[in-house]
Amino acid sequence: MTITVAVDCMGGDHGLATTLPAALASLQRYPALHLQLFGDSSAIQLATVHWSDQLSSRFTIHHTTQVIGMGESPTQAYRKQRDSSLRKAIDAVHEGTADAMVSSGNTGALALTATLVLRPVDGLDRPAIAAYLPTSQALPVLMLDLGANASCTPEVLQQFALIGSALAQTNGIQNPNVGLLNIGEELGKGNDVYKHAHQLIQDTPSIRFYGNVEGTDIYQRTVDVIVCDGFVGNIALKTSEGLAGMLKTMISEEFNRHWWTKLTGLLSLPVLSAFKKRIDHRRYNGAVLLGLNGVVIKSHGSADDTAFAFAIGRAYDAAQNKLVERLKRSLATMQIADKQNLNTKPV
Amino acid sequence: MTITVAVDCMGGDHGLATTLPAALASLQRYPALHLQLFGDSSAIQLATVHWSDQLSSRFTIHHTTQVIGMGESPTQAYRKQRDSSLRKAIDAVHEGTADAMVSSGNTGALALTATLVLRPVDGLDRPAIAAYLPTSQALPVLMLDLGANASCTPEVLQQFALIGSALAQTNGIQNPNVGLLNIGEELGKGNDVYKHAHQLIQDTPSIRFYGNVEGTDIYQRTVDVIVCDGFVGNIALKTSEGLAGMLKTMISEEFNRHWWTKLTGLLSLPVLSAFKKRIDHRRYNGAVLLGLNGVVIKSHGSADDTAFAFAIGRAYDAAQNKLVERLKRSLATMQIADKQNLNTKPV
Repeated sequence: MTITVAVDCMGGDHGLATTLPAALASLQRYPALHLQLFGDSSAIQLATVHWSDQLSSRFTIHHTTQVIGMGESPTQAYRKQRDSSLRKAIDAVHEGTADAMVSSGNTGALALTATLVLRPVDGLDRPAIAAYLPTSQALPVLMLDLGANASCTPEVLQQFALIGSALAQTNGIQNPNVGLLNIGEELGKGNDVYKHAHQLIQDTPSIRFYGNVEGTDIYQRTVDVIVCDGFVGNIALKTSEGLAGMLKTMISEEFNRHWWTKLTGLLSLPVLSAFKKRIDHRRYNGAVLLGLNGVVIKSHGSADDTAFAFAIGRAYDAAQNKLVERLKRSLATMQIADKQNLNTKPV
Repeated sequence: MTITVAVDCMGGDHGLATTLPAALASLQRYPALHLQLFGDSSAIQLATVHWSDQLSSRFTIHHTTQVIGMGESPTQAYRKQRDSSLRKAIDAVHEGTADAMVSSGNTGALALTATLVLRPVDGLDRPAIAAYLPTSQALPVLMLDLGANASCTPEVLQQFALIGSALAQTNGIQNPNVGLLNIGEELGKGNDVYKHAHQLIQDTPSIRFYGNVEGTDIYQRTVDVIVCDGFVGNIALKTSEGLAGMLKTMISEEFNRHWWTKLTGLLSLPVLSAFKKRIDHRRYNGAVLLGLNGVVIKSHGSADDTAFAFAIGRAYDAAQNKLVERLKRSLATMQIADKQNLNTKPV
């Protein structure tokens, strides 16, 4: 079965220079992949003319005239940039010609446009940005929301627990346990929204609720899924990025201090490379805008071609695993179970 | 001039086993330091009997009968544990027999008891936990609140910007610039509390406001002082702790994989030690419970004696630099300047 992924080729810090090499690598990697390339057709034609003849039937070029800037207002982008590569790729998913789309463009514009065009699935108020983060264990941890919603009600956090649980199941984790990110493990910790959310999630029988988890639990993978609002999630994620960057700078400074430390650095290169590969953030590129009637993958704006190819791979996997259908089914089952359970609860 | 620091000797994960060696090291390090040791007097006497005769005049032992557990409710601890080492050390600051106190005990009990006994300085609603974090630059960054207040109004965030600015000045930073932790740099980013706080801080002329900063800015030291609520601050801090722990585990796993990687690890030892020393969290131990009529230093509960000695050092420095008086003076000057400025603002 062919999986068609629509690619916003103009998005991100590097545009075509990144998206097209990633597209080529993805076509070579997934024999069943078909790509719709959205962007400036003459530039895309020029760049893809060298691709092998065997691939020529596996992608189509779709000309668009507008590009959404990284700093543009999401509302303006939604209203005025209807012929942008980002918008047209979302439209392709909406119209059913593509099974998924991927973009490294303006996050706000992507989230707003995708939400308004594709709409949240029944029972959900809004989508969340969900992504896997590396951990000290064999498996990564799924965390949401990483920045789509700057403030959330307890009910929205409960919904995120539901859809996070459903996504983890889609990815093969049976009965995932879900933790609520908080500032203490005990019940009653945190602010009013989190206290109330704790209660709501606890009272949802279809969620295997672990309880509160703390910041230290993220990378220890204490749970399969971590739920938080987009403000806290974004700050936890960006703080991690910043810390990793600082440690990288410092360790390279220490190895470059003298000729003999440079030598030990050279000798340690295989070890340092293995370490680097293990936490290579490019392998974790591609967050899901989870909860919409369509697969939308957000790549990091500064992604290189390797990272962007991982995001295309994530779109391919989500479409192949029928993420949206599974999500809807899980949600329906969960909601039925929860309603029944609430109805039969002793009053 | 003698500086007297009251030490809660029973607090933390290790109690006397940590606090007393740290006390001894601190007396040796600071010739003008006098210590009040609060805790089980017979145990303290037994442990300090070997200390040199020269030191015997530089500390006093104060017998207390209660110990506050790490999991105890702050309210219960405040009401019922009036003869605990934590409480008595705070009382000593309140009564003026000590210039500062330090504890690695129950954070909630320490914050509540200190707030109720010492009271916030005039013009402040509540204290914040403020601490220095290492950065990729030469200087650390001051961040608050790291967990004293799970929810904050915009006005409280504005007060934290004021007291953070005052503390940075006390520590020798002229005209520190202050950033508000948020999920985007642009004005209008974040939730309602942060949008409003941004406006309030911007309209406070005595604060040199940089604007919003993101999680990545913390360890880059984009600003001198970072302000956030205790929920976000605690999660950013604990996420950093968790990530650093994971990276440490991974790098040691990679170096221990084979005999030849072990060898390169051995050769890299001086470099890795230099790196480790540079980010040694023990050197950053000792957060200030900022904004009270008295110097209260919170040490990490799991601090070892080296780390606890750094916390005693921080108490010594804060008392010597007359933190509370300076804070009050800065706040008064700031508030006068801000009132004048508001009064003379064209309407």
